[in-house]
Amino acid sequence: MAAASVWGTNLRISIFGESHGPAVGVVIDGLPAGEAVDMDALRLQMSRRAPGRDKSSTPRKEADEPEFLSGLLGGRTTGAPLCIVIRNTNTRSGDYANVMQAPRPGHSDYAAYVKYRGCNDVRGGGHFSGRLTSCLCAAGAVCRQILERRSIRIGSHVASVGPARDLPLPSPDIPDELLHRLSETYFPTIGDGVEAQMRAVIEDARMARDSVGGVVEVAVTGLPAGLGGPLFGGVESLFSSILFGIPAVKGVEFGEGFGAASLRGSENNDPFTVAESGEIRTVSNHAGGILGGITSGMPLVFRIAVKPTPSISQPQQSVDLAGRRVTELEVHGRHDPCIVPRAAPVAESAAAVAALELLLLNNALTMEGNEHDA
Amino acid sequence: MAAASVWGTNLRISIFGESHGPAVGVVIDGLPAGEAVDMDALRLQMSRRAPGRDKSSTPRKEADEPEFLSGLLGGRTTGAPLCIVIRNTNTRSGDYANVMQAPRPGHSDYAAYVKYRGCNDVRGGGHFSGRLTSCLCAAGAVCRQILERRSIRIGSHVASVGPARDLPLPSPDIPDELLHRLSETYFPTIGDGVEAQMRAVIEDARMARDSVGGVVEVAVTGLPAGLGGPLFGGVESLFSSILFGIPAVKGVEFGEGFGAASLRGSENNDPFTVAESGEIRTVSNHAGGILGGITSGMPLVFRIAVKPTPSISQPQQSVDLAGRRVTELEVHGRHDPCIVPRAAPVAESAAAVAALELLLLNNALTMEGNEHDA
Amino acid sequence: MAAASVWGTNLRISIFGESHGPAVGVVIDGLPAGEAVDMDALRLQMSRRAPGRDKSSTPRKEADEPEFLSGLLGGRTTGAPLCIVIRNTNTRSGDYANVMQAPRPGHSDYAAYVKYRGCNDVRGGGHFSGRLTSCLCAAGAVCRQILERRSIRIGSHVASVGPARDLPLPSPDIPDELLHRLSETYFPTIGDGVEAQMRAVIEDARMARDSVGGVVEVAVTGLPAGLGGPLFGGVESLFSSILFGIPAVKGVEFGEGFGAASLRGSENNDPFTVAESGEIRTVSNHAGGILGGITSGMPLVFRIAVKPTPSISQPQQSVDLAGRRVTELEVHGRHDPCIVPRAAPVAESAAAVAALELLLLNNALTMEGNEHDA
Amino acid sequence: MAAASVWGTNLRISIFGESHGPAVGVVIDGLPAGEAVDMDALRLQMSRRAPGRDKSSTPRKEADEPEFLSGLLGGRTTGAPLCIVIRNTNTRSGDYANVMQAPRPGHSDYAAYVKYRGCNDVRGGGHFSGRLTSCLCAAGAVCRQILERRSIRIGSHVASVGPARDLPLPSPDIPDELLHRLSETYFPTIGDGVEAQMRAVIEDARMARDSVGGVVEVAVTGLPAGLGGPLFGGVESLFSSILFGIPAVKGVEFGEGFGAASLRGSENNDPFTVAESGEIRTVSNHAGGILGGITSGMPLVFRIAVKPTPSISQPQQSVDLAGRRVTELEVHGRHDPCIVPRAAPVAESAAAVAALELLLLNNALTMEGNEHDA
Repeated sequence: MAAASVWGTNLRISIFGESHGPAVGVVIDGLPAGEAVDMDALRLQMSRRAPGRDKSSTPRKEADEPEFLSGLLGGRTTGAPLCIVIRNTNTRSGDYANVMQAPRPGHSDYAAYVKYRGCNDVRGGGHFSGRLTSCLCAAGAVCRQILERRSIRIGSHVASVGPARDLPLPSPDIPDELLHRLSETYFPTIGDGVEAQMRAVIEDARMARDSVGGVVEVAVTGLPAGLGGPLFGGVESLFSSILFGIPAVKGVEFGEGFGAASLRGSENNDPFTVAESGEIRTVSNHAGGILGGITSGMPLVFRIAVKPTPSISQPQQSVDLAGRRVTELEVHGRHDPCIVPRAAPVAESAAAVAALELLLLNNALTMEGNEHDA
Repeated sequence: MAAASVWGTNLRISIFGESHGPAVGVVIDGLPAGEAVDMDALRLQMSRRAPGRDKSSTPRKEADEPEFLSGLLGGRTTGAPLCIVIRNTNTRSGDYANVMQAPRPGHSDYAAYVKYRGCNDVRGGGHFSGRLTSCLCAAGAVCRQILERRSIRIGSHVASVGPARDLPLPSPDIPDELLHRLSETYFPTIGDGVEAQMRAVIEDARMARDSVGGVVEVAVTGLPAGLGGPLFGGVESLFSSILFGIPAVKGVEFGEGFGAASLRGSENNDPFTVAESGEIRTVSNHAGGILGGITSGMPLVFRIAVKPTPSISQPQQSVDLAGRRVTELEVHGRHDPCIVPRAAPVAESAAAVAALELLLLNNALTMEGNEHDA
Repeated sequence: MAAASVWGTNLRISIFGESHGPAVGVVIDGLPAGEAVDMDALRLQMSRRAPGRDKSSTPRKEADEPEFLSGLLGGRTTGAPLCIVIRNTNTRSGDYANVMQAPRPGHSDYAAYVKYRGCNDVRGGGHFSGRLTSCLCAAGAVCRQILERRSIRIGSHVASVGPARDLPLPSPDIPDELLHRLSETYFPTIGDGVEAQMRAVIEDARMARDSVGGVVEVAVTGLPAGLGGPLFGGVESLFSSILFGIPAVKGVEFGEGFGAASLRGSENNDPFTVAESGEIRTVSNHAGGILGGITSGMPLVFRIAVKPTPSISQPQQSVDLAGRRVTELEVHGRHDPCIVPRAAPVAESAAAVAALELLLLNNALTMEGNEHDA
Repeated sequence: MAAASVWGTNLRISIFGESHGPAVGVVIDGLPAGEAVDMDALRLQMSRRAPGRDKSSTPRKEADEPEFLSGLLGGRTTGAPLCIVIRNTNTRSGDYANVMQAPRPGHSDYAAYVKYRGCNDVRGGGHFSGRLTSCLCAAGAVCRQILERRSIRIGSHVASVGPARDLPLPSPDIPDELLHRLSETYFPTIGDGVEAQMRAVIEDARMARDSVGGVVEVAVTGLPAGLGGPLFGGVESLFSSILFGIPAVKGVEFGEGFGAASLRGSENNDPFTVAESGEIRTVSNHAGGILGGITSGMPLVFRIAVKPTPSISQPQQSVDLAGRRVTELEVHGRHDPCIVPRAAPVAESAAAVAALELLLLNNALTMEGNEHDA
């Protein structure tokens, strides 16, 4: 019964809404005042997440037009909490009628039924719906703009979909142009022809009335060294606590991550060097930009594992909650056979929120040149 | 500059100490009153983590005798914060003299130097030392005993060391006896002969003046369904935020984790069934006991990736922090070529702390039959 | 730059909005599921706070019609965050034009100008407006209904307005009927004729183009003994942290409060006794229901000091922020000469939120008989 | 069952210990690195709180020698958590034997008995003992030194003891020398002869086997304008949440506090002016340095009400917890007839901790000129 949809300490986001309720939205508290919000850039990020773009996602169209109820005046943040509301439209609640009786495998239905004693809104997944990630995208877009003005950039790509794999992000340095391109792309990939391969994998799954998972790799560049802390104050703890808040994420790894488990220390350690600028850098970046929980000044790199969406139209074995007996369940409705491309902007958004919180926690958000010139 | 070594909300642990300072320790606040603390069981868990047991770890001997400064009366918790202190002995600070000048690759040295502007205690890694995990083991041992009295059990095994792999934990059900055996073992493995293979890998690394990483798999059984929540209140967020607080952990995954990224929904979804007892269960447990961030009543299963310890005695490239030029570094001292077996009790301890917090956050800690009968 | 408008741990409220922006609102996270929300009772509490009722308050009329964007289904809480939005209407922004140049004495203007570097919304006080307390009333009304179903009751009265004083709440026991009557009254007082005296004091202030402060006394009955904790977990810390969040509150005291400073221990200590029911009670209640930070089972009683509203129409000395010279300021617009009666429902609402959080923090919210019977 | 003895967000203090257990202590996490700790200054603050100085306090002598277990190297903070332990000596547990049966009126005994189901350590009040405030003094002394290097000064005086009253602090400006003198004094007062009057009141109470309460007034000068925030992020909420953590505090007020309830707005508003330096100031300081929850740049001034210590040696009415019948209780042992002078350094210490947290939360702790010059 504890609050669950609030994240952060100095910067706090509070997400609300149910898939088939009146609206979803987010309150962002702790933003610096006087920061411009570019609505087109915000809409772009929200549209990257929105379903219905192409055959790789669900045909449900969402307008997702954000309404700012507070915290914005003349296009700039006021420093007061910023509330963004996105009305729900185009909901067809009838599709979910039988969820009440039989929980969908892989979904939150059964666990939520126990937790909320049958009182939660199950329509469309209710508060557990992927739709709630539109709020994270809206919040992330605001934070991202604040970061970009401090030369901190965020981008991601679809590292894999099922067996299809993209090239990794370049290492140790990641060009701004690449991150920029990725952060504006609907199906962001690096290697030639990779998108086509991945789309083929997705189409195969769709034809089989099935779904498929994948991995998103994210980078944050421009963070100064020295942010974070030991033990639970580490960058990994901070970022993972928001990343695992994204539905369908079942794994988070930084730098070499699970791959490091197979390496020797001599392979995984990053030798230090001195750049021409006099800056201390590492020659490689197996650490993913984090040493001892603290930023090293190298790009922050992490990956999230996205499970195949549990919404499939094949018949599945479930149970009748009232009668307590096994039953067969066939879920109708609009299913997205692969949410991985849409998870990319969500992961970037979570990274933007976490990066801004990291700066605030470390008294490291520069404020020069941002004064309101009224 | 924000607090970093505190974790939790309703149950809070606050860890302090530096490797070569007077002591390390932990304060645990929020424990229920009247809970017996078995000192032998606590010492067993601490000794599983302690170095110097055999050739797979560093020869430094640590007494690690915990002293209880508060919170305990007549062998039971009083409900007031429990403080456990472990004195540091047998420290040879001279070994770390040159760390001041040249940061060790893969260590926190450089990042901490920037964050603390050169004022942190670098001896033995200071507050970033793996020694601090002894505090987590002490705290975890107390929590574990409270959980066991509620039939919640925790165990783990070394899933891999370099290329050597153990069998996975049985699924979907995990016998109590197996978890119990693993939780009392120094080098916990499941498959026959696996420990010997892993020890061989470790010995190879030692002979090469190198180190090797691995993976620890952990299970928590007996948690009721319905604990956790959506978004950031999910079990994954809660557990990962403490697990990434363990130094050297670079990845955390639940259930199939990164493996789910390669699966189809029909493979990854766990069909529901009804047990003879009438309880609702799943036939498989790809979800690792978590649906929508909430416990499903199935075993909670997760894995952590442990990077190879950065302490190797090979010469490595570093930089002179004062002169800002490249230099060669040779680190002398006692090195543990593989900390993965010692990470197992630490991961179990973190899981114990997180599981107790999860129960408290959900108003689900049963108190019947625990009243003090004085 | 830290989040400021969020309160609570297990139960969290997040308030947003500016007086002359599109809307104000609140997100409440951590509510138990399946709790009915009586809209009439909610509107009553909001209308008690709303201005424009009579000559003792500002003539600005506010519709204050709450819209529920989430967390409610079929009139019951779903367990997901509940978002209530109240649209702003009838705002006349022109009235506040000169506030930009010269800060109003006693208002947040100057301090907010420095904090937000001139970027905050000053119209109507922006996020500092008393209007934000309507959100607290909405949140409190929801919590109060949950408490009432557990026989926990909250009421308050105007203990003083300027020199006019009401009788104190009866002690040690407070009849349910009295609390109930007070909690439904616009100008709640206990003594005969007290309201008329207080209205006369207010009218005098209005005629003098001035304002007047006062004290509100609040009681919460029905809380079981044993809630709260030592040091910072005490009931006083919890309640004061939300009560001081009410604009204009400059003092909070529990039980005898500042009066206890003039007493001897023999006068202030409450002797214990045993009620006919076998329950342990105290003969008096100087402690205000709190011993060592923990509820004693006696009524929780506290008082808040409400300063005279700084909005007065007399000319006042201010400074020109641009020119840095002294200036005279005359504030036009709608002023409430006394907000004390309207502060009563706000204080009750804060108490309701805090009391529910107290129960959740102590795993003491009973759930029997509240299951959804759909 | 929630953590109670932890305070703060960016700066966190975690207090542990029981009066008759092995030790009391505190962990302070989030301190900036490189800050010198003057042990003499720290001991002075601890000795101001310690009992046994003169006839106004209990004859129990406490060595109160602080031991630093971590966070300090070469006399400077390392940035890691700082743990200070104070061993308990000279405890006579036999004195408290009958507390188990019959709770002392005005003490935490009964409430704690219910909360901890009889398992808490009742000897000397256990974790509820005033002795725990020595930890707050130690933590506060460290923070105070950090603040003083930024020209932020803290002092307090005994504003009243029973009917005896001191002069108020000068207003709006408070000379550094006065604060400095008060902050080094055992019985700090401003007016001539006031200490003698107060001591007479205390002696009268002692002779009557009784106790007496009082008020402490505290000031913090040098805080820049613009710190704090609206609603629950206000300075009043932050400070009150730690001040009410001091045992025996039953009221907290800022500026005019409860006195403002009797004032008119024209009296209570502080007119702005421009100082010769060009700084914006107020002519008076009824606001106690806080406008809209944010510092105004004027001295922060607040008062705490300290109830008469409940420990009196007169016979009192209590109940037999086992038999549930009324009984007479006579408490033997060492009683302090007035803890108000000893509460002064505790209140200053709480203010120091809160002020440092306020600076950290607002990214306002200056770090220039504090680099370690090793």
